[in-house]
Amino acid sequence: MPKISEKGKAMPSSPIRKLVPFAEAAKKRGVKVYHLNIGQPDIPTPQIALDAVRNCTDKVIEYSHSAGNESYRKGLAKYYKSIGVEIDHTQMLITTGGSEAITIALMTCLDPGDEVIIPEPFYANYNGFATQAGIVVKPITSSISNDFALPAISEFEKLITPKTKGIVICNPNNPTGYLYTKSELEQLAMLIKKYDLYLFSDEVYREFCYDGNEHFSAMNLPGLDQNVILMDSVSKRYSMCGVRIGALITRNKEVIDAAMKFAQARLCPPSYGQIAAEAALETPADYFVGVYNEYIARRNFMVEALNKMEGVYCPRPKGAFYTVVKLPIDDSDKFSQWLLDDFQYNGHTVMLAPATGFYATCGLGKNEVRIAYVLKIEDLKGAMECLDVALKQYPGRTI
Amino acid sequence: MPKISEKGKAMPSSPIRKLVPFAEAAKKRGVKVYHLNIGQPDIPTPQIALDAVRNCTDKVIEYSHSAGNESYRKGLAKYYKSIGVEIDHTQMLITTGGSEAITIALMTCLDPGDEVIIPEPFYANYNGFATQAGIVVKPITSSISNDFALPAISEFEKLITPKTKGIVICNPNNPTGYLYTKSELEQLAMLIKKYDLYLFSDEVYREFCYDGNEHFSAMNLPGLDQNVILMDSVSKRYSMCGVRIGALITRNKEVIDAAMKFAQARLCPPSYGQIAAEAALETPADYFVGVYNEYIARRNFMVEALNKMEGVYCPRPKGAFYTVVKLPIDDSDKFSQWLLDDFQYNGHTVMLAPATGFYATCGLGKNEVRIAYVLKIEDLKGAMECLDVALKQYPGRTI
Repeated sequence: MPKISEKGKAMPSSPIRKLVPFAEAAKKRGVKVYHLNIGQPDIPTPQIALDAVRNCTDKVIEYSHSAGNESYRKGLAKYYKSIGVEIDHTQMLITTGGSEAITIALMTCLDPGDEVIIPEPFYANYNGFATQAGIVVKPITSSISNDFALPAISEFEKLITPKTKGIVICNPNNPTGYLYTKSELEQLAMLIKKYDLYLFSDEVYREFCYDGNEHFSAMNLPGLDQNVILMDSVSKRYSMCGVRIGALITRNKEVIDAAMKFAQARLCPPSYGQIAAEAALETPADYFVGVYNEYIARRNFMVEALNKMEGVYCPRPKGAFYTVVKLPIDDSDKFSQWLLDDFQYNGHTVMLAPATGFYATCGLGKNEVRIAYVLKIEDLKGAMECLDVALKQYPGRTI
Repeated sequence: MPKISEKGKAMPSSPIRKLVPFAEAAKKRGVKVYHLNIGQPDIPTPQIALDAVRNCTDKVIEYSHSAGNESYRKGLAKYYKSIGVEIDHTQMLITTGGSEAITIALMTCLDPGDEVIIPEPFYANYNGFATQAGIVVKPITSSISNDFALPAISEFEKLITPKTKGIVICNPNNPTGYLYTKSELEQLAMLIKKYDLYLFSDEVYREFCYDGNEHFSAMNLPGLDQNVILMDSVSKRYSMCGVRIGALITRNKEVIDAAMKFAQARLCPPSYGQIAAEAALETPADYFVGVYNEYIARRNFMVEALNKMEGVYCPRPKGAFYTVVKLPIDDSDKFSQWLLDDFQYNGHTVMLAPATGFYATCGLGKNEVRIAYVLKIEDLKGAMECLDVALKQYPGRTI
């Protein structure tokens, strides 16, 4: 039997995936599982996007342009202009989800053995994308003790080697919900300039900023036109994760030209998804107001409920729809499994994402979990009740 | 300005892409261009697939399972059973087009520096996928002088090194239209067994076999369950290239488990595409009869028209909807550009794919072009008339 590749062996499997069989077994036993573990919003997709696909009269579903339909790219350029980011349709590639934007960006800019610095905890799939590209992730730890703010620039500087090609940020952040301030981004910009690095900015949660905080795009950092690569997606903005439409955006022509060759090799992004995404550009403003109000209510309820529990600390997330919470437990992997395997409260339990999967540094995240507040308030309420009871019963509790 | 990667520099750009600006310029001058250069069929997508998407009532377009919807995988397993390939839904991953099936298969099985042998001329994007994965393509030349039959096994054996991990075949073949016989595949199988290699079999043109010739799937080669990886796509079968749905199929559990980790990193294949693809499984048989008759008529017309031209040789393709044709010209890249830039006949011209792009060996394919017979007979007729006149006028003609 031929051997699989070292790369195939090295591909990480997320701790959440290991829990899936336990969740399925719990459901088979009749236990209702509140899914706080995944970023799949329950918010309806904008009707205008759904209708565009339902009304599609194409007789042949053809390949699109490898960079995506020009009409969609032009529309998307207008959307960026409306949020203060000046780019045109030749400075972007439509990708198959944000995932492909990241893989193409990394492969275009980094060779195997090259390094990127990423503040941890970070989106677990960055590890998979890095493994695919053969590149090395150097984590820099942000801490719940200061609500996951950007680590000091001097700490970044310590990690820079001749192999360092860039820094990856996710803003607002998955998994922490942290929103970088303009001032933090400006500090990062100085470092990017000083070492002539790439800044890969994942801004897929841009529309989810709370409490009057404004999102500042890395695309608007002055003097970094050749350094910044924006990675975007319509998945969260319009609650249509399944359409698989994202974008890679940069003013660096050499990068966009090389990225285009990767795009051409895989032919094109999905045609139906592009129809939905182009139509979604006309989503009425009240849709976003409704979504905003819903998430604010969920967040406020959840933060308050969590911080009332003994030994629990939940920072107040300023963006996205996640939070990383400190729990009085010995091991977040064990606790998450125990919740599904050994616990129920009135026929309910909770599925969480152990934070260990979001840290590259071994041993971190053992007393933290990520919670996605993607459920309706009444379900969130049930989930918080479960969690409260569970923390009092869990054999590995530390208080 | 930071430097792009060596990989980004090395990504190939197809000779067809270089012609696109010339085609656009010709159209601006009012010249009608017959596109024989791309495998975008004009055949309608099955109505049942279009209707399934138009009737979709989902309110949230959610992520699917990373391996693809279970209902679709189960349906697909039935389809394979109906064509004599016994697999179940756990032995497959639904991918974003055949393209992703190939990239995931290569990354799962090969590390950077490892080698695959591919009979040339081959589908040009294999080069791009190999470059992405950092693997080395060793071409083995098949020749128009024997209608692109499988090269002798002894020739394959000469190319095997300790780095050789597999052989890639495309059957029926793009670009040649060659259909491998069972006997040729059995010879290949002996080699695969002897050196314990992977056999990557791209069978996306399976439904396009002519003249009573039957397709023999690599999945049915006895004793190779751990070696064969099938790469498939619905793009050509149902003329819906834009839905971006393919599949990676193997009975090798270690491979499917590792491939699943790549699939999880990119979350899921497109949801709308899966709806179309699942519905397409119920496409009535008369659809395929119609498609078959159409392609047979086109092929017969084209082969006859080409072989009537002085100095032209076109093998009679037994499958797919391509042919590689020998022309009496000095340089297929120059000729293809000249057709768009300097030539017209009654306001028409032809866009061809220079065969140079399908050979990895430098210098081959200079007097060959690939023709995709994806146009209606009346357009093919116009295209053949143009080509006939052009070959008489082209300054670089060799007769």
